[in-house]
Amino acid sequence: MNPFTDCVQESIAGLGEEGLLPRIRRWLGKAMPPAPAGMGDDCAVLLASRGGRKAPTLVTVDPVIYGEHFDDTVAPADVGRKLLRRNLSDIAAMGGRPTAAVIGLALDPRTRLDWLERFYRGLAADARKFGVMVAGGDLATQRGGLAATLTLLGETTAPGGRALTRSGAREGDFIAVTGRLGGSLPSGRHHRFIPRLAEGRWLAGRREVTALMDLSDGLAKDVRALTPQGCRPQIFADLVPKHRGCDLRAALTDGEDYELLLALRASPRRAAGVLAAWREAFPRVPLTIVGRFAPAGAAEPGVVDFSNLNGFEHFR
Amino acid sequence: MNPFTDCVQESIAGLGEEGLLPRIRRWLGKAMPPAPAGMGDDCAVLLASRGGRKAPTLVTVDPVIYGEHFDDTVAPADVGRKLLRRNLSDIAAMGGRPTAAVIGLALDPRTRLDWLERFYRGLAADARKFGVMVAGGDLATQRGGLAATLTLLGETTAPGGRALTRSGAREGDFIAVTGRLGGSLPSGRHHRFIPRLAEGRWLAGRREVTALMDLSDGLAKDVRALTPQGCRPQIFADLVPKHRGCDLRAALTDGEDYELLLALRASPRRAAGVLAAWREAFPRVPLTIVGRFAPAGAAEPGVVDFSNLNGFEHFR
Repeated sequence: MNPFTDCVQESIAGLGEEGLLPRIRRWLGKAMPPAPAGMGDDCAVLLASRGGRKAPTLVTVDPVIYGEHFDDTVAPADVGRKLLRRNLSDIAAMGGRPTAAVIGLALDPRTRLDWLERFYRGLAADARKFGVMVAGGDLATQRGGLAATLTLLGETTAPGGRALTRSGAREGDFIAVTGRLGGSLPSGRHHRFIPRLAEGRWLAGRREVTALMDLSDGLAKDVRALTPQGCRPQIFADLVPKHRGCDLRAALTDGEDYELLLALRASPRRAAGVLAAWREAFPRVPLTIVGRFAPAGAAEPGVVDFSNLNGFEHFR
Repeated sequence: MNPFTDCVQESIAGLGEEGLLPRIRRWLGKAMPPAPAGMGDDCAVLLASRGGRKAPTLVTVDPVIYGEHFDDTVAPADVGRKLLRRNLSDIAAMGGRPTAAVIGLALDPRTRLDWLERFYRGLAADARKFGVMVAGGDLATQRGGLAATLTLLGETTAPGGRALTRSGAREGDFIAVTGRLGGSLPSGRHHRFIPRLAEGRWLAGRREVTALMDLSDGLAKDVRALTPQGCRPQIFADLVPKHRGCDLRAALTDGEDYELLLALRASPRRAAGVLAAWREAFPRVPLTIVGRFAPAGAAEPGVVDFSNLNGFEHFR
């Protein structure tokens, strides 16, 4: 069977990624367990099948593909760095510590040795910096293509082997973000961002934090994954921390922020205590409460209307 | 920098895979530990960084790429099966048990939904059959491409967490293979082969077995990876188990056999005991001693001259 079709309705383009994921889940059936062991979180969480202490293994996979994630204007070392950092951000989003990576490379035989050397040296420098062992990989030919797929393993460090998933939030939990949002692509930050590993581990160690994920598609879209059923994210426009030169729309929809988004279950007083402890631990990275998970209902003044923002997103 | 060049000497084609691997090792430097934790074996062997019992994690990665590993004549379900089985064979080659997989898919938007469904259903059926949990993955766009990269995790089952690497053989060890060799591509066996998982675990539990790998490029090439320094593989032509219709050259160089190749340290009498125990455990799969690691020196009558066979290989 030829795998391609020009009939959009018969192709994956007709469904889009959000339509395709439930299909894949159905096709895999019992071969795929529910999240967080299977699809649907930043990492898969695998319970050790034996041994004494609980020490779940975290696994995530993300590629960089020529023509999609980078082009001739990007330095090859930055391609290598971004490949690792994208995956590191997923480990950070579970409150984990990265351990080892394997890389599957698909290369046109015409690939420049020089390009590949710079790519690997950039990746290796970052691997040493973030404590990741590059434990091997695979080389394959793909005519006309250049793609690198990195699988990153990690472990949890919180007491009891806790991995923070996306599914722990409840009505009334505060919504908070690390850092500032927006403008990642025009500023080049999407290549230079620092994955929030230490911050993620700190958050996983706080009982008040009930859910955690990283921001890759923009707060407006990503917050849906954290929102409990029957709730809506009540986000106050003037609280959203924006990068210099970014308006609210940029901060909410630009994507590739690689900051952390979390839910916090605490009284206002106790939440203030968490923020104070954070400032002591990470004086240079703001942690900002931007809203709360409220019962589903009509929008209020000063609150971001996500139905509009989703609209914005579709025209980008 | 444009990643491609038409100057062969500046491209990876000028080096070939065997020339490229040592370069990658150099570029990665301290980011890559020596084998078996790093490059150079069938799987990477990661030692648990904490916990009580020794239980190394095995990791391997292999892709299937449209135009390279499959084309329109291959049923999509067979593509999914082969993707998993290639990786399962690497786990078998360490004497391990597979646990979980993640899949990175790079797809042209024109990919047929129907093709993808058959691919996943084939993969899922095999995952259940071989006890592998599909723990998630990633979907990315690659215009004009269709590639699936599977990372498979496994664990060791032998006493003391022993993983059988390629590096344990010594002069005098017997060389043995499972099954029969040759003709995998014309017969279609390269899509239907059964990874030797149970056999690999059995071998890892025998102290006489000193090294293990799977046969993917043909015995003539693959046996080099098991050969101790200062030795040559002394393989007797009439001992090599051939598939029906295959001559010696086919059995030694066709590749994609996905049988196991091992080194056995035992007296002839004790080796006969191992073979007898094997026949009882696996009555339908032959285990055949085909030669021995002898001191490097001139070829003898009846012994395969590998210098010629390597020549054959280059003309394929």
